[in-house]
Amino acid sequence: MKIAVTKLEAFCIDALRTAGVGEDDARTTAEILVLTDSWGVFTHGTKNLRGYIRRIRGGGIRKDAQPGVVREGPAWAIVDADSGLGMIGSTFAMRKAIAKARSAGIGYVGVRNSCHFGAAGCYAAMAADENMIGLAMANDTPTMTVPGGRGLILGNNPFACAIPTGERHPILLDIAMSVVAGGKVFSAAALGQKIPETWMVDAGGRPTTDPTLFPHAGALLPMGGHKGYGLALMIETLSAILTGASIAGHVLSWSFSDASLATNHGAAFVAVDINALMPVAEFNQRMTQTIQEIRAAPKVEGNQIYLPGEMEWTRRETALREGIDMPDDVLASLRSLAGEMGLDISGLGI
Amino acid sequence: MKIAVTKLEAFCIDALRTAGVGEDDARTTAEILVLTDSWGVFTHGTKNLRGYIRRIRGGGIRKDAQPGVVREGPAWAIVDADSGLGMIGSTFAMRKAIAKARSAGIGYVGVRNSCHFGAAGCYAAMAADENMIGLAMANDTPTMTVPGGRGLILGNNPFACAIPTGERHPILLDIAMSVVAGGKVFSAAALGQKIPETWMVDAGGRPTTDPTLFPHAGALLPMGGHKGYGLALMIETLSAILTGASIAGHVLSWSFSDASLATNHGAAFVAVDINALMPVAEFNQRMTQTIQEIRAAPKVEGNQIYLPGEMEWTRRETALREGIDMPDDVLASLRSLAGEMGLDISGLGI
Repeated sequence: MKIAVTKLEAFCIDALRTAGVGEDDARTTAEILVLTDSWGVFTHGTKNLRGYIRRIRGGGIRKDAQPGVVREGPAWAIVDADSGLGMIGSTFAMRKAIAKARSAGIGYVGVRNSCHFGAAGCYAAMAADENMIGLAMANDTPTMTVPGGRGLILGNNPFACAIPTGERHPILLDIAMSVVAGGKVFSAAALGQKIPETWMVDAGGRPTTDPTLFPHAGALLPMGGHKGYGLALMIETLSAILTGASIAGHVLSWSFSDASLATNHGAAFVAVDINALMPVAEFNQRMTQTIQEIRAAPKVEGNQIYLPGEMEWTRRETALREGIDMPDDVLASLRSLAGEMGLDISGLGI
Repeated sequence: MKIAVTKLEAFCIDALRTAGVGEDDARTTAEILVLTDSWGVFTHGTKNLRGYIRRIRGGGIRKDAQPGVVREGPAWAIVDADSGLGMIGSTFAMRKAIAKARSAGIGYVGVRNSCHFGAAGCYAAMAADENMIGLAMANDTPTMTVPGGRGLILGNNPFACAIPTGERHPILLDIAMSVVAGGKVFSAAALGQKIPETWMVDAGGRPTTDPTLFPHAGALLPMGGHKGYGLALMIETLSAILTGASIAGHVLSWSFSDASLATNHGAAFVAVDINALMPVAEFNQRMTQTIQEIRAAPKVEGNQIYLPGEMEWTRRETALREGIDMPDDVLASLRSLAGEMGLDISGLGI
């Protein structure tokens, strides 16, 4: 079932407008969620709109939030997202980081009182569009354990990095700190499959192959053990400890917690202006050569080497031509949303 | 065999002075290498002094190098390390990043024409001593493959993050991007042991348990597959592509390549001044609470939860009281160095 990008955006805007979100904010949010779907990252795209709108209707997300700078300096700012949609505060903050980088060479913007921001890569890519290196990260309600521990201790904190290349699309890394995403564990559970022992521990902290234990009696393992743990703690620091957001176990779940409460997620955005440090043409030439060398490296028989984000950009090119090939679970979520809000979904043809 | 920190520093200074390095640079380098040994990170400490000095005597490291700023802005600088010891250019650069952060809130300093800088954590910790969050990273000659590839494609690039806590020592993460360090593979080979299949691939890109293949016919695997690959490429960009240093396969090995040639490693240092963004007392209180909650989390039976760097700081406390418990391979390297340079090693009692 393929849906055109423009039609999917129009439906999301309609849903958000009906929930009371202003025109500009509805468009920004819709574009981010549909961009994410077009990359094939369906866990973080329009599937979640139903949950965000449930939270708007419950009052936990303010439909008319006004993000603002609460403190700033030459190369940094702290933004209060006013408990709005994560996409709105995050877009505001990355724009601010880009402006700081334009004048100071590098800009850091921390955010508090935000909510789930979707795919971190959307914000990192904003910087790349301005010939800047972009970083985006956030904290989240804990789903991950740490070495020696058991139970949910830190969020599976997302981290993205976008690097302009002079080619059509930037290099775009978008990862979280666990071995695999919680969504993969849920999928295995839904399909009645076992999972590898390296993904998760049970309530006693022992490796388990049973995905149905997550998250009530199981926790994701950090990638590389102490490495993923340490990086998650670094992200927690830059996103929350330094910004005034809720920290780790104090962050509410955007999907499961009482919809009348603000989740108070934190986030952080960094931009580095390439043009300040090195002529962009020289940077692009150095990046192009590096990319060529990586692509030309010897491969495992029958394999390709992809750049970070390359598969996602290729999927997007196809989606822009042919529509996004939507999975059933996303379609079901959109149908439920339309039903709950009395929206006309016939434009989507589903 | 335990050696007092001060005696080990004195020996290193003696060796460096004999090789023609100036008093201040010899002391800076010695302190960094001995700090690293005192953490128990013996792969990156005084064991490598022999190799650095071989390179000084060969001309590939300039004994009288003068690192300098080649370009700078409000929140950034690019440093040319003048092909000196990695410790000298890196210390200069982190001090500069700290100064930039003091005025702008955040500072990025990239370095070119450097050499192997030892343990990244040494520089990150310098920022923490100033109540700043510190990041340190560098590129290196390739020892790692990437998903789909085989052979040596990217360096096992190091990354460190130090976070002040208000306690005695900062949180200190110091990692590289492979599943395990090359040193562990060499150790297994020396002991005639097999390695887990998850560490390395052979020349065909197939998982192998044979450590003797590294590095001539084997390559380290990145942690988390595409995650470690992407992070290594990000570090390569910030350390080398953006600074003018050699990139990936163009970086020479500080230990194996012709000692008359400059390795042209790149590095990057970032400092974030906590006091600019949030009162330090408030940050410390938030960090202390987070640490307490992590420590109080339920544990796997018989296990502890350690903060990143906690074990290393505990080892250092012991080392400062009782001397550093030196492994045989480090002692052997120091004895060889003394023999080659005609140095009196009796002060070390070895």
